[in-house]
Amino acid sequence: MKIAMLGSGFIARFYADSLHAQRRRDVIHSVYSRNLEKAARFAADYACAHHTSDMEEAIAHPDTEVVVIALSNDMHEAAVAICAKHRKHVLCTKPLGRTAGEALRMMRLVEGAGIFGGYLEDLCYTPKFLKSLASVRQGGIGRVLWTRSREAHPGPHSDWFWDKSKSGGGAIIDLGCHCVEIGRNFIGKDVRPVEVMCWADTQVHPIDAEDHAVGLVRYANGAIGQFEVSWCFRGGMDLRDEVAGTEGTIWMNNFLRTGFEMFSTGKGGDYVAEKAEANTGWLFPVGDEAHELGYPHMFTDMFDSIDQGRPPQETFYDGYVVNAILDAAYRSASSKRWEAVELPVWRGAEASEAIKGYRTYDDKHYLIKEEVLPGGVTKRILKDKQTGEVVSVEL
Amino acid sequence: MKIAMLGSGFIARFYADSLHAQRRRDVIHSVYSRNLEKAARFAADYACAHHTSDMEEAIAHPDTEVVVIALSNDMHEAAVAICAKHRKHVLCTKPLGRTAGEALRMMRLVEGAGIFGGYLEDLCYTPKFLKSLASVRQGGIGRVLWTRSREAHPGPHSDWFWDKSKSGGGAIIDLGCHCVEIGRNFIGKDVRPVEVMCWADTQVHPIDAEDHAVGLVRYANGAIGQFEVSWCFRGGMDLRDEVAGTEGTIWMNNFLRTGFEMFSTGKGGDYVAEKAEANTGWLFPVGDEAHELGYPHMFTDMFDSIDQGRPPQETFYDGYVVNAILDAAYRSASSKRWEAVELPVWRGAEASEAIKGYRTYDDKHYLIKEEVLPGGVTKRILKDKQTGEVVSVEL
Amino acid sequence: MKIAMLGSGFIARFYADSLHAQRRRDVIHSVYSRNLEKAARFAADYACAHHTSDMEEAIAHPDTEVVVIALSNDMHEAAVAICAKHRKHVLCTKPLGRTAGEALRMMRLVEGAGIFGGYLEDLCYTPKFLKSLASVRQGGIGRVLWTRSREAHPGPHSDWFWDKSKSGGGAIIDLGCHCVEIGRNFIGKDVRPVEVMCWADTQVHPIDAEDHAVGLVRYANGAIGQFEVSWCFRGGMDLRDEVAGTEGTIWMNNFLRTGFEMFSTGKGGDYVAEKAEANTGWLFPVGDEAHELGYPHMFTDMFDSIDQGRPPQETFYDGYVVNAILDAAYRSASSKRWEAVELPVWRGAEASEAIKGYRTYDDKHYLIKEEVLPGGVTKRILKDKQTGEVVSVEL
Amino acid sequence: MKIAMLGSGFIARFYADSLHAQRRRDVIHSVYSRNLEKAARFAADYACAHHTSDMEEAIAHPDTEVVVIALSNDMHEAAVAICAKHRKHVLCTKPLGRTAGEALRMMRLVEGAGIFGGYLEDLCYTPKFLKSLASVRQGGIGRVLWTRSREAHPGPHSDWFWDKSKSGGGAIIDLGCHCVEIGRNFIGKDVRPVEVMCWADTQVHPIDAEDHAVGLVRYANGAIGQFEVSWCFRGGMDLRDEVAGTEGTIWMNNFLRTGFEMFSTGKGGDYVAEKAEANTGWLFPVGDEAHELGYPHMFTDMFDSIDQGRPPQETFYDGYVVNAILDAAYRSASSKRWEAVELPVWRGAEASEAIKGYRTYDDKHYLIKEEVLPGGVTKRILKDKQTGEVVSVEL
Repeated sequence: MKIAMLGSGFIARFYADSLHAQRRRDVIHSVYSRNLEKAARFAADYACAHHTSDMEEAIAHPDTEVVVIALSNDMHEAAVAICAKHRKHVLCTKPLGRTAGEALRMMRLVEGAGIFGGYLEDLCYTPKFLKSLASVRQGGIGRVLWTRSREAHPGPHSDWFWDKSKSGGGAIIDLGCHCVEIGRNFIGKDVRPVEVMCWADTQVHPIDAEDHAVGLVRYANGAIGQFEVSWCFRGGMDLRDEVAGTEGTIWMNNFLRTGFEMFSTGKGGDYVAEKAEANTGWLFPVGDEAHELGYPHMFTDMFDSIDQGRPPQETFYDGYVVNAILDAAYRSASSKRWEAVELPVWRGAEASEAIKGYRTYDDKHYLIKEEVLPGGVTKRILKDKQTGEVVSVEL
Repeated sequence: MKIAMLGSGFIARFYADSLHAQRRRDVIHSVYSRNLEKAARFAADYACAHHTSDMEEAIAHPDTEVVVIALSNDMHEAAVAICAKHRKHVLCTKPLGRTAGEALRMMRLVEGAGIFGGYLEDLCYTPKFLKSLASVRQGGIGRVLWTRSREAHPGPHSDWFWDKSKSGGGAIIDLGCHCVEIGRNFIGKDVRPVEVMCWADTQVHPIDAEDHAVGLVRYANGAIGQFEVSWCFRGGMDLRDEVAGTEGTIWMNNFLRTGFEMFSTGKGGDYVAEKAEANTGWLFPVGDEAHELGYPHMFTDMFDSIDQGRPPQETFYDGYVVNAILDAAYRSASSKRWEAVELPVWRGAEASEAIKGYRTYDDKHYLIKEEVLPGGVTKRILKDKQTGEVVSVEL
Repeated sequence: MKIAMLGSGFIARFYADSLHAQRRRDVIHSVYSRNLEKAARFAADYACAHHTSDMEEAIAHPDTEVVVIALSNDMHEAAVAICAKHRKHVLCTKPLGRTAGEALRMMRLVEGAGIFGGYLEDLCYTPKFLKSLASVRQGGIGRVLWTRSREAHPGPHSDWFWDKSKSGGGAIIDLGCHCVEIGRNFIGKDVRPVEVMCWADTQVHPIDAEDHAVGLVRYANGAIGQFEVSWCFRGGMDLRDEVAGTEGTIWMNNFLRTGFEMFSTGKGGDYVAEKAEANTGWLFPVGDEAHELGYPHMFTDMFDSIDQGRPPQETFYDGYVVNAILDAAYRSASSKRWEAVELPVWRGAEASEAIKGYRTYDDKHYLIKEEVLPGGVTKRILKDKQTGEVVSVEL
Repeated sequence: MKIAMLGSGFIARFYADSLHAQRRRDVIHSVYSRNLEKAARFAADYACAHHTSDMEEAIAHPDTEVVVIALSNDMHEAAVAICAKHRKHVLCTKPLGRTAGEALRMMRLVEGAGIFGGYLEDLCYTPKFLKSLASVRQGGIGRVLWTRSREAHPGPHSDWFWDKSKSGGGAIIDLGCHCVEIGRNFIGKDVRPVEVMCWADTQVHPIDAEDHAVGLVRYANGAIGQFEVSWCFRGGMDLRDEVAGTEGTIWMNNFLRTGFEMFSTGKGGDYVAEKAEANTGWLFPVGDEAHELGYPHMFTDMFDSIDQGRPPQETFYDGYVVNAILDAAYRSASSKRWEAVELPVWRGAEASEAIKGYRTYDDKHYLIKEEVLPGGVTKRILKDKQTGEVVSVEL
């Protein structure tokens, strides 16, 4: 497939490294950058036939089959509009919009034009995530009660990220979009996110936006999706997820602890990994960063979906739902109370079965807990269905 | 030192195992249980000279120098009152009270009687915690921005814990007391806890109390103490703490991942560890459970403090502050908004310096971020102090 | 590139899964199996245009550009001979031969025919390995002193592996080939492997070949490559490597501990990972098995090398050197002494500088050790160059 | 119990810190050092009533009930002789002797005098080791096939260790004594160690003794105890053990990975842990070093054994067996072949049942392997008892 890349910065290069690696058959044929010199350098580095400082030219180019948006957040909507105009499939980096309103308009643009709209939510495509999700769907951990997704590092590379007017916010919009969608996948995309409670503060940096936030998203079935985002973390890039269910739990460490540990006194050695903070002492490189971050599997799903005429795992609709949750998070951080998630468009279930479900022990009792004690005795703690009395039985 | 043990159940035995281990010189000379037979069995197991089903008899016994309360939560206050009456030093298990009001009365009883009141908050005495706290105080991670303390397992052993009238609540009162005090220690006991936001629900068990909760405690200096408690966790006993500061981070795993891993097909093998859920497959025993849970170091501090006439690290006052924070958590879970921590007695600082503090780059700019790029170039992101404009400089 | 796959069993399918994944452009157009039905099933599963039970037909097929040998060890040489006859590039699974003699003949066949001979040593292509090797070459851990490579699991899937006449041996030939080449890469392919000491035994299985072995390969510069192989390991597939150098160390866990942990009570769940032994309790799946085992990067290097007319990282010559080391290991296991590595063809350095090199402290002393003591004092332990006396100095 | 401490250096202080911690009832009443000033400083630091530069005076002191030898290796025998003369119980640090001959004489001295001889092999008393050993004895991992014990760090603190005449050797005698006894415990003290193969070299330091060695000890039942010792390791103190059995495996990390991780940019922070090499970046402190290294449990066993008139877990006899194994290791490093372990005194079993034992499948076949394939099919690989043919059956 022939790709037009919009943007030539950090993320565009990261995408390109994945797209042109491992003998993949899709190629970036055109690149757009506001700065023509940067576009030319990118085109040289990635052997693109065409480069331009006119975005529409790259999109409208007759060879362009699909457009990848790797621009600052404030430019997503305009880029999508041009794709819609020229009916070119489009993949947009995260977050989709700066607000749900913006994201909803982008969704309507692609749906109206009948083009493919893929949401480049890479952390929902890491191999660990994909396998976890499959296990969860097979019932490996029972009903999901709670998820925790944490993304924290010392702050983004690009300067526009630190400018709220361009980015739409701080750590919540930058990192929370990942965390929220990770939680939503595990809990179930069909389950409505109802309300959000969020704390946010600017603890360290001289910026207007928040550099640290923690939030809880409550879903209609009673499950909770917790997110923790920070631009204040020291120690590298902390990407960890947890899922707790009625029958099990999953822990994932996507970056800092992947079974690869190195100690160096520092004579020799060089760049270790994205956002690593040190090059001596104990270091935790990752084998193949793009892979651990989900890029190859993400692009495979996107292009296979286009080929097969089916929606990808992560669509513009998903991006819009994420933005709606983040909007509620911002409102909550300000109002200091739970805020409803406003979803003018909702395509999931209207009602969800509560995750609760008591285990009956016998006609008269519920089972609270069963445990094998050190001596081999089985102890059961029961609750009388009528009186509510708690009793314990040892067998 | 001669100890009277009040209670003969799970926690009393765990305490006794620690107290009588490793050639320690303090001895339990008397044990009280409501059930005389259980008292007799305990006395036989731990070679106690005296046992009784009359609590006051154990406390008032002329040989008793210090009393250890290992009773259900509803009996703490009454036990403390008898200790005060007979002017016997007292150590009370966690939580101190079911409410801050109860805890405050207990604190006033010991202070009024001039006796020693030690709060048996064992998880603030684990060797990892003690060394972490020392590092944090030495500035090893800079100013503390956020702590996370998580305690989760499949539910308590004792049946009274599942009865709200006896326990005072569910996972919050049972486990949150640990988490809150861990966070408070790292952030600084002198810093006032201001308000709490908490989600709580009964997700799995047929009980009135909450079996899962997540909360945030905001301190006067802007730091956040996060707690996560659950009686729904599957996989053993999950005791993890994290601390993030401006110059570093600490991760502690107190139980499930301590560098001890075992795989067994299950032919042979037996009880592995408290609250472990399996005895085949990959297992994660701990070397010395009492040690990892802080009991030896806790009792050492308590008895050394009595000997030296100084307060221990964890006092009845600390237990009362913890209860006040938990009270606010319960109110917040109900009101769905941040709730103020009500502290009729407060002995810390009245005002705390905010943790914020911008780094100046030059006369005109703040430094937002400095980073060494892969090629070796140093990139600095700056903010104009006047205009707020964000610029980036590469050197 | 159009590939003919020889073999349709476990490893052939694992290769095919990697080759046809992630939108790679190379395709398997033909498959050979002794069993025509199996060939047909494979062809259906992987959309191969052609299948046959005549090996030469698959190789000689005009569309075939490159042949992948995924056959039992006893059939490698014959297959290579046919590739040479038809001048088709060939990639051969590990081990190259059952003996160095066999491997040497295979090397001469491809070199004589002027075809490309790639050695499919996947574990020298895992992303962790590749990044480690780059770090080692940059001097990140100084001079390499010792490597440890361990591959252990409960025994191979295929029955022919358990038959020594087909496989050429047991765990040494099956797994040791990986370990030896991993060590050789870190120590340096230019450095001559001099001699081998090896213990081997049949500890558990009713077979003629060894099911457990440990060996040491001594290189000309004094470095040691240690290998540990077992078909008796319980707990999954244990793939761990360590490298120790004068300035650092590297630890890799390729399979059982990769930052992905799952607990399941076992209601739900299914197949977890190759050679996992359980599906309840704590499980350690890997995100993308083929990736963690090096297949994608290996095939990329192979096909890119063919395209670019350069040798791949792992050649038939490398496979032959590995076989020569394993031959010495077998001799040592029998003779119970160090055995020389016999290399009729050697293309590396004739002499290697010893890794030793003393640090001079001043004119009269060598520096043995320097250490900062708890109080901040620097302690240096020195050796008099003349007298050999050891003295310590504190500063 | 009243203790006389011989020695006032690093190890004596480490012992004293453990002995006087945690409200233990035993006290060091006397200390001997060749250097009276150091003895006086030690006495002041640990509140010893008596100090002296005359070893016999400390031992013979009427208050002395037990003597702890914390001297350089060359002084152990002389010290034991004086203890025997005055019939004082004695605990000796590791290694017991510099050779088996020396150790045997020491053993005979204590046995002849009828005094208690405890071998202070602390790493056989770590809580993880004790619990592992209990699991192994309960059959948790079946029959033990192989153990690996690794102790590696950048070299000892004390200068005498670097002088072969005083220490008796290098890393083998210093660290190998631990590793050998750890393996011997797991395999069974009753099982005779038969022969040793060992590689040793001086890879880095300007010393006569070896600074790196790897060895295999073969036991009469076919089990292997592997040891890896190094004074060249960079990254801290690497203390890891593994045990593999027919039904499971155990992995222990005693020091560098114990569930305690800290990142520090280095502003603040101080001494982290014994033999840590850095104080910035990722650090891995241990909670309570003495505990993790086994000191408290070791002294408890020693004193309890004296009180109860029973032998401790680690006796002078054990120390002598360890020395005999190390002697064989040194001979093997020189002869380059397996060397027999010479045990003029052997108190274990004369013959041991081999660990081998085939599993019969049916009258005609042995079971080689059973495996559940991804699709749910059970595959069994069998061997014909008569013909030796290997066949596979799928069910």
